[in-house]
This record gives sequence, C-alpha cells and structure tokens, in this order.
Amino acid sequence: MLDERLQRVGEAVKSVGCDWAILTNFDSICYALGHAPPIETAISPFAGGPTTAFVCADGACGLVAPNVESAAAQASRADEKIIYEGFAYDHRADLIGNYAAAIAEMKTRLGIGGVLGAEPETFPARLAASLGADQPVDITEPLRRVRATKTAEEKALMRRSAMVAARGQEAFYESARPGRTELDVFAQIRAAMENFAGERTAVAGDFLSGAERTASGVGWPIRRVINPNDPLISDLAPRVSGYWGDSCASAVLGEPQDGYLKLFNAAKRALERALEIMRPGVIAADLDGELRRSVGADGYAYPHHSGHSIGASVHEWPRLTPYERAPLREGMFIMVEPAAYDPDIGGVRLEWMIEITATGCRPAAPFEHRASIAA
Amino acid sequence: MLDERLQRVGEAVKSVGCDWAILTNFDSICYALGHAPPIETAISPFAGGPTTAFVCADGACGLVAPNVESAAAQASRADEKIIYEGFAYDHRADLIGNYAAAIAEMKTRLGIGGVLGAEPETFPARLAASLGADQPVDITEPLRRVRATKTAEEKALMRRSAMVAARGQEAFYESARPGRTELDVFAQIRAAMENFAGERTAVAGDFLSGAERTASGVGWPIRRVINPNDPLISDLAPRVSGYWGDSCASAVLGEPQDGYLKLFNAAKRALERALEIMRPGVIAADLDGELRRSVGADGYAYPHHSGHSIGASVHEWPRLTPYERAPLREGMFIMVEPAAYDPDIGGVRLEWMIEITATGCRPAAPFEHRASIAA
Repeated sequence: MLDERLQRVGEAVKSVGCDWAILTNFDSICYALGHAPPIETAISPFAGGPTTAFVCADGACGLVAPNVESAAAQASRADEKIIYEGFAYDHRADLIGNYAAAIAEMKTRLGIGGVLGAEPETFPARLAASLGADQPVDITEPLRRVRATKTAEEKALMRRSAMVAARGQEAFYESARPGRTELDVFAQIRAAMENFAGERTAVAGDFLSGAERTASGVGWPIRRVINPNDPLISDLAPRVSGYWGDSCASAVLGEPQDGYLKLFNAAKRALERALEIMRPGVIAADLDGELRRSVGADGYAYPHHSGHSIGASVHEWPRLTPYERAPLREGMFIMVEPAAYDPDIGGVRLEWMIEITATGCRPAAPFEHRASIAA
Repeated sequence: MLDERLQRVGEAVKSVGCDWAILTNFDSICYALGHAPPIETAISPFAGGPTTAFVCADGACGLVAPNVESAAAQASRADEKIIYEGFAYDHRADLIGNYAAAIAEMKTRLGIGGVLGAEPETFPARLAASLGADQPVDITEPLRRVRATKTAEEKALMRRSAMVAARGQEAFYESARPGRTELDVFAQIRAAMENFAGERTAVAGDFLSGAERTASGVGWPIRRVINPNDPLISDLAPRVSGYWGDSCASAVLGEPQDGYLKLFNAAKRALERALEIMRPGVIAADLDGELRRSVGADGYAYPHHSGHSIGASVHEWPRLTPYERAPLREGMFIMVEPAAYDPDIGGVRLEWMIEITATGCRPAAPFEHRASIAA
C-alpha cells in the first residue's frame, strides 16, 4: 500500500499541474521516502550532487544517493534505488559523472517526463541540465501545506522525538551545576538524548546561562562557567530518525528570587493558556495574539514567534505569528514557546510540543517545567 | 592587503578563463571569505537559497547571507556584505524573493558580469536565473588545486584544529571504560574538544567498540555498552572556526593480547614509515603504496585510502590512493591513517595530521598512540 506521505506528495504535485516532483532538500526527501542519512557534517565530499528523490503524481518513486548513504537509502521507501559510486579508494571515481548517469538512468527507469516540479533553492543547474528541466515549477509551497498535518506513522515518530527531547530536559535538571561550563552540561544532555534515542542525533536549539545570555534568548552553548543563581535556558531540538523533537526548559540554579519567579510564572501561565484554547479551527495568529496578551498582562513581551509546526524540518508551516491566518487542524504538531525576558534578571522560555486532536490538544511528551534546580 | 586565499581563488578563476567565481559550497565560501556559520543542523528553514560568495579574478568579493548567519557574515572578509531577511516573526518574510533581490543587488554593487564560474553540484537554478548564468564554467577542480597547500593563516587554523582533535584523543583515553556506552564516551570526548576549542563543533569520524565493529573500521557511535577487553577505534574530526581537524586512535581496554599487539604494531610501523618518507615531491600513490606494503609485510591490509588532505573540507585533494599521481608539496596538511583489521580480533587505525615542510614533514599536533587503556 502506498505510504500516505507519498500520496500527499502526489497531491501536491497535481495541485500545481505537475507530473513529477524532483526533491533536493534533505527534509522533503526524508518526508517523501523516509531516507534519513546523517546531516550533522553537511554535504559529503564523496557526493556528486544532492541526494535526489523523484515522486510521480501517482506515487511511483525513486531515489538517487551516493554510496556513502547506502544504508539509509536501502531502508527507504523508494520503489527504485540507484546508489552511485562516490567513495572509492582504488581508482578515481567520477563523482559528478556518476551522479549525472544515475539521474539519467532513473529518468529512464521511471519514465520521468511531462511537467516537472522542484525546490528552486536547492535544485542544481547540473540536475536541470540532466533532466532537461530548465524552468521547473516551484512546488515548495504546496509541499509545505500537505506536510502540516501528520500521518499515523509520522505521529509515532513525532511522539518519539518529543520523548527524546523530554529525556534531554530531565538530563538538564540533573546535570546543570555551578562550576560546569555550558558545553559540559550540553554534552551530558546530548548523551542522555542519544542513549535514549539509540542513535547519534543532530541537535538544534539554544543553551544559555546568566542574566545577559538568557535575556537575549538565543545562542549555542559556549565555554562560560555556570555560576550559582544563574538563570538557564535549555532549548533542545534533537533529530531522531529524520524527525525533529523540540522543547524548552528554563530554571534558575538555587533558590529563585521574586523577579525570576515573575518571569517564570508569566511564561508558564501563557503555556497553560495555550493548552486551554488550542483546538481545530483556531487561527494561528489568534493563538499567537492570545499568548502575547497573556505575558503582556504580566508586564513582559518576547521578540520571536510564539511557536511553529515541526516534522522532518525543525520549523515547518504554519508558524504562530501575528500574520499567519492558517487554522489549526487535527494531526498538527505545534511547538508553543511563550517567553518573558528582563535584561536585569534574564529570560524564561517554556516550550512543549502540542498535538492537535479532533476536539482539542494534548502535549506530545510533557516534561515538568521547574523554576529551579538545586545548586 | 588581499588575503592570500582570495588571491588564490582569483588565480583559479583566471585559470579557466572566468571573470568571477560564484561559490555555493559551505567549504569554498569559508575558504574564500572566512564565513563559517554552524553546519551541524543543515540548511536553515529561514534561508531563501544557499549562502553565496562572489569572488572576482582580481580578488574583489561579496557575500549574500540570511540574517540567521549575520554574526558569521559580519566577521567574514567580504568587501560587500548583503544580509537579507530570512527570519522574521511580525510579518511574512519572502525568503526566496529576498534572496533573489540580494543577489541582484550584489550583482550591481560589484559589477558582476563576463564569464562566470560556479560549483555545479550546488549552484541552484534560481541563482542561475538571477545572474543570467545558465551555463557557468565548472571551477570545482581548479579551486580544489589552489586549496591544496595552506596559507600562513590557514596553517595556524589547521594546527589549532589538530590540537582540538588531540585533546579529544586524550579524553578518549581518560573516559573509555567498561559499562559505558559508545555514545557516553563520545559525548565526553566531544565536550572536551568543545571546551578546548571554546565553541560547539561539528564532528565527523567514527567511534567503534568490540571486535566486529572495529574490524569494519567505520561507523558513528551507538548505544552499545563497552565490555572489558574490547578493542576501540576513536576517529575524531572536529570542525573548529570552519577548519577541520582529524585524528584516529585505537586501543584495547585492559591488557592487550598478542593478536591485538600485532595489529597495533603493524599500523604504528606504517605511520612511523610515513614520517620517515614524507617530503615535497613524493607522489601520493607512492606513499600510499609504501604504507600498504608496510602493513602487508605484517600480514594485513586495509580497504580504504591511506589518507587525505584536509582544510575547510574534511576531505580535500589530494588523497593518498593507488591512483593519485600528485606530488606532496610544502604547506600541505595530510592525514595519514594506515590500519590493520582482523575479523576475529578487531581493527586498529592510527592517524595523525602531518604537515609537509620544505625538507620533510612534522606532525601538526602529535598525541600519543597507546595500545591499551587501563580498564
């Protein structure tokens, strides 16, 4: 039976009058075919072009990948798989020629033709030439839309990724201690997530300590030594089997002062408000406005979105912003991350992954939001 | 004064009859302009196209980057910098339109025209259209060649990356213990490297335990619990400020048996042989052959290259393979990684970064190769 994601890519293809989608973004390839090689060290020097997926309007599909991605490719859902030689050591492999030949062979095998759709940001000139597709139709937007609600299999993947993130936040509470660097604590968190996931995971997000850094809200961990009474932000987005989890916890080391508790409670109230009101039909902008009003009533504001959808990309459509008129729908997984920042005290951002159900919502993998960690 | 890397890109541009290079690979952008944003979470969903560098034959240069890469872009060597809006939250940013407009503006500012060279694997159709460059000249190969010997500034960067890798290997010897998972040990190694580097680093390489996994030679760390007497391979390649280090250590936990010592000594002898013979003029294939003969004399072989150049890419030209006729030259930094594998006992691979000097060679940041770690 055709995987529901392939059906949906087929719908997107048809909606813009195309016969085939040619996919070159790692996230849309993962979505369509379940091909999820590591991304953490960027493009392999042993690839002759981007890994490429082909999906017909009727769901027929193929994958062209270099031999360094062979294991992931073999585990994918592609009907046709062509693994070309990228890495070799006993002779000079013609990476680019091998990629082009694999594309030509796939074109023949699948009978690719008619109107082609592509993702123009990553669709390389070489591929355009190989396919005779100088002006492919841009299918970025329709693809984005079919991905917004998750299929049954994706729901399981999202809950698992959310659980990995939740395990990371437990490790945050366990390992944040004065005298350790941000990088030390982040490494322990990462090990906990990776051991739980059973695989090495790319991790997006932020890890911040101290008033100045947490008040800025964003940034990767640095060598800064954590001090007693430091506020901390731990925003963890692990990629597990090609699907991203996300989460944010904030806490102070030691006894929280009144000023910090005000920030914490403002963010917490807004997150609780989100759980009360999220259900199918609620407009993203209205939810965003409600969360901003909630923290605003406590005297705070935040200079970022209130949240975003998530899946094979860490940020997907729709986002919770003042301009987004899309309604929430059953099967969406939405990150909700209200925050409160004070330059003198620091920042608090509290984020859960929230699944939209038929009648309301539920956290995908709730973890405890604690205002303080024993120092 | 023009950075020497810009001069060299200019030479590569001229060597194939071009007026401008349009660079879209993260490593060549880092090489040309010193723009080194994180790569660990792949392409940002808030980018409208690949970050793009422009280098004229005379060294004039510009950079187009999304606002999420603003800090890295501001620190770059580009004469002209255009940071376009990718991330916004209070209005819908037109990522792709903003990218295209930035490219058009850069084209005007720098007066880009004439014959354009590009990297076809990553040069997107959209960029070709914006620049009116349907058939850019492929400059991949000439760029690769100018990058093979390192400039004075690059030498310092390479030694630092090698030191970070060496610190990682010390942490390997300190933290590998029975009862820990490969992922646990790898996390401690990573934290040690990141604390030493003062930044979060992408890490390529391998981490393997047990006879079966080490005999296979390659693979990322998994949840496997390390046992007493396990052989271990720790191949660590951290990316520091855009430049990669690399290294491989191998050791057994506890007292090494005779069979393991045979493997270890075979790899060690070959690495020592490399240090004796590496100097300008030695042909890569001859060095490769000498190392294979050395381990062969001890009864072993390895199914991979004997090494590779390294820099802003983790693997660069030339590689130490049976087919590569390039001579070593002063200023090259070459990874040398002879190995010995036995399916019943496991694998040993010993790798150092070796700098080619005017008259010979020296390890860039030698660390001790130990056959055993106290269990």
